[in-house]
Amino acid sequence: MKLASFTHSGKESYGVYTDDGIIDLKPQFGSEFPDLKSALGEKALERIKEYAASAPISYSHAEVTLLPVIPNPSKVLCIGHNYEAHRIETNRAKTDYPSVFMRYADSQTAHLQPIIKPIESDMLDYEGEIAVVIGKQGRRVKESEAWDYVAGYSCYNDGSVRDWQWHTQQFGPGKNFYQTGSFGPYLVTKDEIANGEILTVKTILNGEIMQQGDTSMMLFPIPKLIEYCSTFITLNPGDVIVTGTPAGVGAKRNPPVFMKEGDQVEIHIDKIGVLRNTISVG
Amino acid sequence: MKLASFTHSGKESYGVYTDDGIIDLKPQFGSEFPDLKSALGEKALERIKEYAASAPISYSHAEVTLLPVIPNPSKVLCIGHNYEAHRIETNRAKTDYPSVFMRYADSQTAHLQPIIKPIESDMLDYEGEIAVVIGKQGRRVKESEAWDYVAGYSCYNDGSVRDWQWHTQQFGPGKNFYQTGSFGPYLVTKDEIANGEILTVKTILNGEIMQQGDTSMMLFPIPKLIEYCSTFITLNPGDVIVTGTPAGVGAKRNPPVFMKEGDQVEIHIDKIGVLRNTISVG
Repeated sequence: MKLASFTHSGKESYGVYTDDGIIDLKPQFGSEFPDLKSALGEKALERIKEYAASAPISYSHAEVTLLPVIPNPSKVLCIGHNYEAHRIETNRAKTDYPSVFMRYADSQTAHLQPIIKPIESDMLDYEGEIAVVIGKQGRRVKESEAWDYVAGYSCYNDGSVRDWQWHTQQFGPGKNFYQTGSFGPYLVTKDEIANGEILTVKTILNGEIMQQGDTSMMLFPIPKLIEYCSTFITLNPGDVIVTGTPAGVGAKRNPPVFMKEGDQVEIHIDKIGVLRNTISVG
Repeated sequence: MKLASFTHSGKESYGVYTDDGIIDLKPQFGSEFPDLKSALGEKALERIKEYAASAPISYSHAEVTLLPVIPNPSKVLCIGHNYEAHRIETNRAKTDYPSVFMRYADSQTAHLQPIIKPIESDMLDYEGEIAVVIGKQGRRVKESEAWDYVAGYSCYNDGSVRDWQWHTQQFGPGKNFYQTGSFGPYLVTKDEIANGEILTVKTILNGEIMQQGDTSMMLFPIPKLIEYCSTFITLNPGDVIVTGTPAGVGAKRNPPVFMKEGDQVEIHIDKIGVLRNTISVG
């Protein structure tokens, strides 16, 4: 099942994303689950699945504007250099622990919405990544039980303003520019992808493949990331772990490639889908 | 005027903090302003001040449990090594820009509530800081206009789990352990402190002064921090900038001093107040 957040006639809602259009879930479930992140529990997802099996399509795709899959996560935990080839290209030291930096919900954008190159920089870069969306609250989750805490997966483009990322050792400023973190188009629920199944992630810029990697290359696999992050903070439904990007970022190419107005960037992930954005300036 | 968030009989509210007790603002303003962060606009604060001038005390101090001043900020932007003596003791390079790392609301605690030393570490350290609470939405705020965006000030203890802070170059994990960021007791509105007035911050651990500094020592003063942070992200009412800590942190003492169960730690700031916590383990 695919789940998306969207606006329709200016109102925020969430629903099931199908080939034929969107099944709005708010009329049926809104009083109990006001937003998608509150509807990610196992039992809620079962009820939604049952309802969607016979519910009519509410809107065509053209009638809705997608929002970031989770527009209001309490946390977006991003993992730095989690693919060996990317660690090498960025010249980062090997570490015994995942490198975790933080993105705020305020910096997100959605499928088919612009990623904004800020006027302050000409170094806007892409980073195609697999986003893991948490479905169950947990602290100190063991690696062996971590899959139970996953609601599903989506694509993420961790748009990075490199000069601001490198102002100091802390990545935060370059990773939190307004409308740079693209999250979508929808969440694919966990039952459609086997735990640990190898997924390929590709970044395509103006038709050219820039990054390609798969989850077998991760230095810290998804269950390890859930264990590590939940050690320091409680993970809540709707929290997002953005699991790191493969080699091929623009900043480390020769010559470097940065995104400019009008560029089209896509993140393709097997079994999930395609996240597409055009670059605007603002 | 002093404003605080609290629970009374299990219900969340916010109010005016006076010497004699708390004036609950929710009965009067709750439908318009559901929480303190929504009541920080200039006009709202004027109305609250007028109301509080003749309103009766709702509860004694003993009847309420204080919450973090803003329990639900969308962003807590923390500034690293912003006092020269602390930069030197931590052996950090001089930078042309503030070092910004992020704390999530989920990691906060309140005045008289425990700061929790996690079972995973014996390196829990204090960091006394001045918290600036934003009152007005703004992006790309100019340094010269930055004071207009401040609602008020509070004390912050940016409790840091040093080994986890140093797992990689990114500080986030060590700065986001559950119940380590203490924020309180209340917000002092901006009208009580002249813009740029020099404030002294002191950290006292078990009766001994461990840190002492004042805002004249800041490498990047408050207006500069607002300008820098608002360049990348929109600042919203209730967002917090935690402005950095003076020299004297426990990890850089010889021998090092870390907080342990039962320790009492206080942050004293001129014209603001005293934030007090006891350390528990969990």
